[in-house]
Amino acid sequence: MSTKTARGLFHDYAQKLPIIDYHCHINPKAIAEDWQFDNMTQVWLDEDHYKWRQMRSNGVEEKYITGEATDYEKFYKWAQTLEKAIGNPLYHWSHMELWRYIGYDGVLNGSTAKKVWKLCEERLAQEDMSVRGIIRASDVKLLCTTDDPVDNLCWHRAIAEDDTIDFKVLPTWRPDRALSIEKQDFADYMVELSAASGIEIENFDDWKEALKKRMDFFAQMGCVISDHGLLYVPWAPAKEAEVERIFRASLQGETISRKEELKFKTKALLWLGRQYQKRGWTMQLHFGVTRNNNTRMYQELGADSGFDGIYNRVPITKLSSYLDALCQKYALPKTILYSLNPGDNAALGALIGCFQETEAAGKIQQGSAWWFNDHKNGMREQMESLASLGLLGNFIGMLTDSRSFLSYTRHEYFRRILCDLIGGWVECGEYPDDREWLGRLVTDICYDNAVKFFGFSNLAQQ
Amino acid sequence: MSTKTARGLFHDYAQKLPIIDYHCHINPKAIAEDWQFDNMTQVWLDEDHYKWRQMRSNGVEEKYITGEATDYEKFYKWAQTLEKAIGNPLYHWSHMELWRYIGYDGVLNGSTAKKVWKLCEERLAQEDMSVRGIIRASDVKLLCTTDDPVDNLCWHRAIAEDDTIDFKVLPTWRPDRALSIEKQDFADYMVELSAASGIEIENFDDWKEALKKRMDFFAQMGCVISDHGLLYVPWAPAKEAEVERIFRASLQGETISRKEELKFKTKALLWLGRQYQKRGWTMQLHFGVTRNNNTRMYQELGADSGFDGIYNRVPITKLSSYLDALCQKYALPKTILYSLNPGDNAALGALIGCFQETEAAGKIQQGSAWWFNDHKNGMREQMESLASLGLLGNFIGMLTDSRSFLSYTRHEYFRRILCDLIGGWVECGEYPDDREWLGRLVTDICYDNAVKFFGFSNLAQQ
Amino acid sequence: MSTKTARGLFHDYAQKLPIIDYHCHINPKAIAEDWQFDNMTQVWLDEDHYKWRQMRSNGVEEKYITGEATDYEKFYKWAQTLEKAIGNPLYHWSHMELWRYIGYDGVLNGSTAKKVWKLCEERLAQEDMSVRGIIRASDVKLLCTTDDPVDNLCWHRAIAEDDTIDFKVLPTWRPDRALSIEKQDFADYMVELSAASGIEIENFDDWKEALKKRMDFFAQMGCVISDHGLLYVPWAPAKEAEVERIFRASLQGETISRKEELKFKTKALLWLGRQYQKRGWTMQLHFGVTRNNNTRMYQELGADSGFDGIYNRVPITKLSSYLDALCQKYALPKTILYSLNPGDNAALGALIGCFQETEAAGKIQQGSAWWFNDHKNGMREQMESLASLGLLGNFIGMLTDSRSFLSYTRHEYFRRILCDLIGGWVECGEYPDDREWLGRLVTDICYDNAVKFFGFSNLAQQ
Repeated sequence: MSTKTARGLFHDYAQKLPIIDYHCHINPKAIAEDWQFDNMTQVWLDEDHYKWRQMRSNGVEEKYITGEATDYEKFYKWAQTLEKAIGNPLYHWSHMELWRYIGYDGVLNGSTAKKVWKLCEERLAQEDMSVRGIIRASDVKLLCTTDDPVDNLCWHRAIAEDDTIDFKVLPTWRPDRALSIEKQDFADYMVELSAASGIEIENFDDWKEALKKRMDFFAQMGCVISDHGLLYVPWAPAKEAEVERIFRASLQGETISRKEELKFKTKALLWLGRQYQKRGWTMQLHFGVTRNNNTRMYQELGADSGFDGIYNRVPITKLSSYLDALCQKYALPKTILYSLNPGDNAALGALIGCFQETEAAGKIQQGSAWWFNDHKNGMREQMESLASLGLLGNFIGMLTDSRSFLSYTRHEYFRRILCDLIGGWVECGEYPDDREWLGRLVTDICYDNAVKFFGFSNLAQQ
Repeated sequence: MSTKTARGLFHDYAQKLPIIDYHCHINPKAIAEDWQFDNMTQVWLDEDHYKWRQMRSNGVEEKYITGEATDYEKFYKWAQTLEKAIGNPLYHWSHMELWRYIGYDGVLNGSTAKKVWKLCEERLAQEDMSVRGIIRASDVKLLCTTDDPVDNLCWHRAIAEDDTIDFKVLPTWRPDRALSIEKQDFADYMVELSAASGIEIENFDDWKEALKKRMDFFAQMGCVISDHGLLYVPWAPAKEAEVERIFRASLQGETISRKEELKFKTKALLWLGRQYQKRGWTMQLHFGVTRNNNTRMYQELGADSGFDGIYNRVPITKLSSYLDALCQKYALPKTILYSLNPGDNAALGALIGCFQETEAAGKIQQGSAWWFNDHKNGMREQMESLASLGLLGNFIGMLTDSRSFLSYTRHEYFRRILCDLIGGWVECGEYPDDREWLGRLVTDICYDNAVKFFGFSNLAQQ
Repeated sequence: MSTKTARGLFHDYAQKLPIIDYHCHINPKAIAEDWQFDNMTQVWLDEDHYKWRQMRSNGVEEKYITGEATDYEKFYKWAQTLEKAIGNPLYHWSHMELWRYIGYDGVLNGSTAKKVWKLCEERLAQEDMSVRGIIRASDVKLLCTTDDPVDNLCWHRAIAEDDTIDFKVLPTWRPDRALSIEKQDFADYMVELSAASGIEIENFDDWKEALKKRMDFFAQMGCVISDHGLLYVPWAPAKEAEVERIFRASLQGETISRKEELKFKTKALLWLGRQYQKRGWTMQLHFGVTRNNNTRMYQELGADSGFDGIYNRVPITKLSSYLDALCQKYALPKTILYSLNPGDNAALGALIGCFQETEAAGKIQQGSAWWFNDHKNGMREQMESLASLGLLGNFIGMLTDSRSFLSYTRHEYFRRILCDLIGGWVECGEYPDDREWLGRLVTDICYDNAVKFFGFSNLAQQ
């Protein structure tokens, strides 16, 4: 942080605040069972395809990434990869995690790998380094996982019923599979959904009914947020009858054209948006992604293995038409928009200003820099754009979007960048140096806005 | 401003220069009648839909924005909104306006709203705070309004004939309605245009004749600039006969397809471009906008109410084809290109370099950061891009594009950013620290280039 | 350079390194014959259409650019143009070249033009300022020209056989004309290619056979790099038979549709990619360009005269499909991707991470900021993006892409920007201040990575 004001804001305010992690991909079972990890490869490398990408970029053989090499060999290859990763968020995060959780403030590279590996092994064996211990040490008050509608949420239930757990773990409704009418396993998924909901799904109405039942159940379990992963937000309005026909065709195993897919998804997303609005849920839309670019590796390793990319032609007009259609019916829920293309920052920043309503300050949000953009420049640019086009003071701030239990340092990362940004403005004379006021702003963006926006309550006291 | 050089350039040169505001939306009647305002809501909030957006982003009810609330209530809601607007140009502008015109150098927020309201009321009641007083105090030598071809320009005439007015107010030719063949009121507008021009419009040739008459009239009134508001620059060449057919169809109330609309507009813009070139006028093209994204609010409040956005897929090849077609016929006028999508900066910066001619240094200009981009980062990025790709020294600089009489401080805002940019380069050793030379550059960009480019003359002496 | 670390890294490491210029457009004949230049117009202005653009942007008449004016008059107009070029890389480069090669550390502008002209004339007349002298003085160990498949590479042979030349000059395979099936002179070119290869080309198979022969020859002459100039990377898979039909149609002078062109090019690029991979060559893809925007000037001056632009809608999915198709067949060569649209940085940075393999660290590279982006901000942004998304430590760094023999200072320009970037990170605490390690990084990016990546060997010792 390059200014005194920034350091003051960070140390006096931001650093002391607890964490709300309203969007992540961690496994609730690990919390319920309070897992303990044996080594850093389990923590860092077993599931993090973002790290895998970097190892491949360093010419590392797949054997040491997703293959049969030993845990230490993998860790060593990762440590070597970091040597080339100057300026990369993984360089920053890895070292912040070693520092904050392991207590190691040195450098991780090929030469230090052995030493760090041992240090981590010892530290991870300590009782307070269980999953719950890490969450508690990170001062996390609440986190939201990402869950399929057919999930029985048994681990969420177990956590909720466990009195010794003083942070909240809420499910998030992510019905991507229920919308993937173009996929071969759609009919199979409908069977699962029928079973989970108790509604025999034979037509589009049944589909709605079944999802309603599951939303009721998710709501009972504390869910207040939904999430959708999309290439781009579709807009292809069609008659109910046509959508019905497409739905049945897919159930019967017929091939669905891209056009039909878009028609179904448009109708489905309109219906879901309205449901979220009725329930007071927030709708998250993640888009601008190209999935599984590398077919050969997809066939070897499946999805989510580090072969996704940024889609650079997201038509903002389709997104606008979708939000507009909901708005016309007074059915637009609180919404968070995330594009993977940083070139969309300005267009999104302008668009959210077109659909604001009184239900919440900043009802329509541009989400924090996401995934490939979740680095120092990307975060800074998202916040500068948001501030330039709208009200940064109403921003609900950071989320980890992570599968890893050590990733809470990313909130620290975000807070440092936020304070640096604000401190710079203040020292340039672009905002008055009123520390109380600035502290309020920082506290809002780092914590209070999210609590208010989502309507979280009964959070553990600090 | 972060360097000594920057401060020197600003205070020794930029700050002392008068203002040419070659593109704005103020009402000439207000100048002719020399209006005086009762309070800051009249000045700031009655027409500024950019501020309305921010209030909506703060969850403010429409009642306090465009509705029945009192003027003070609206002002109070705006003051509260500013609390969240750190990093927003409206935060900077509002405070600069309070400082430069009202003499208030404190903060405006919910707590200070009452005090500031009263201060402003007192100050606005003083005689030198009439519209003309403000313009004079701002050292504006010339401003160009934005006018429809059917406008009788009576207020411009009144101003020109008033010897006590020592600044110039020129009309700008903005024939958007004359091109809006796809709109339902096109035939009605043609009736208005027939009346204004004395040419009965029954076909495309009549349309041209009528516009020519009006251009003659605008030219008599001192007009040297035209302006077009576009989604994107169309390029759909068609035969004269087909355009004739489309034109008649629209006159007869038939529905015009998107394709037909583009064909007509292409032909119309080609004809107009050539007209501008013949007359030595400058052509402004504003594009990259999505209009009226929120249908419900459009139905309630009409256009220009704060529901526009950025169009992120402007095809540069169409713009290029249009400029090329004019250039081939030696019919390309001086041109200023403004895209609302900041992602177009580089493509525009490269494109203008393809059509430069000897008629003026910098004959084809990339306009200053426009509308949603008219903030510190946006302006800086536009200038950095322009400098990197072309000749910043030939840039014609800032315009307010504003409806507000207090907006001249935006020229100061621009000048500070310009001096900061140049000062930074100089102190990094990227340009020699020759103060006279730098002063020349700054003076050119802030004032002299515009005077030369548009061919303004007989401006009042300082 | 704004930090002490940056200055240390530049002076202790970067500045001392020799140069590998793996992509340029200089004329090998000039080296073989060891040309000497009479004056700066010959050096700077006779071929540099990038400078021509700037002169046109200054309103300079074509006579002084590509016309009949004297060499000094042209130089003088260029000197005057520089007065307006604050912030432009040509301003920086011109002065660096005057400083490093001529020994002039003052400013070039209209007033100093005469003096500088004379100084340069004197200096250029000295023996060590021959083409070879300049290359040697610049410490260039190896450079790669850009050559057509029909080229007999006689000058490369002459250079290779000349013992007095202690740097390497290798050809680069640029088969654009062999792919330009849509152009009227395609059949003529096929006649040339038939002659050069000894293969009578009557069908697509012959085309392949002929190109293979030429690749064999290029390989003998030391070629290890290919290059393609494209509007965007096409992806329109078609059956061999259809491509055969299109190929024959073109040979017979039939008009080729855009669709057919894309089909042929897709097939051709797939075949070529596989060839490159077999030979261990690197494939360069340059795209995102609009060519010859100004038809009138194209008719007057032909291609490459300063009328090209940035294409802002490059579909990343097509590029991804192309790389994927090669990858599926284990036929993806080492690849460098260059987009002329800086807005593609993030999408490219993500995409390269999807196709990395073990053949080289950083097998798929995002090329250094290219052409219109080859300025301080553009380079910095390309490196920041690369670092944020991948491994900057594996970057193969700078190339001049130039026609000029004085352009090697662009390597210094790049190295300064690189050191400034790294120094900034280090002083912000984002990377440890281990000078040896940082020196290694800088040395890799400025020199060693390129040597390793391309497999260059037997380079002259320093």
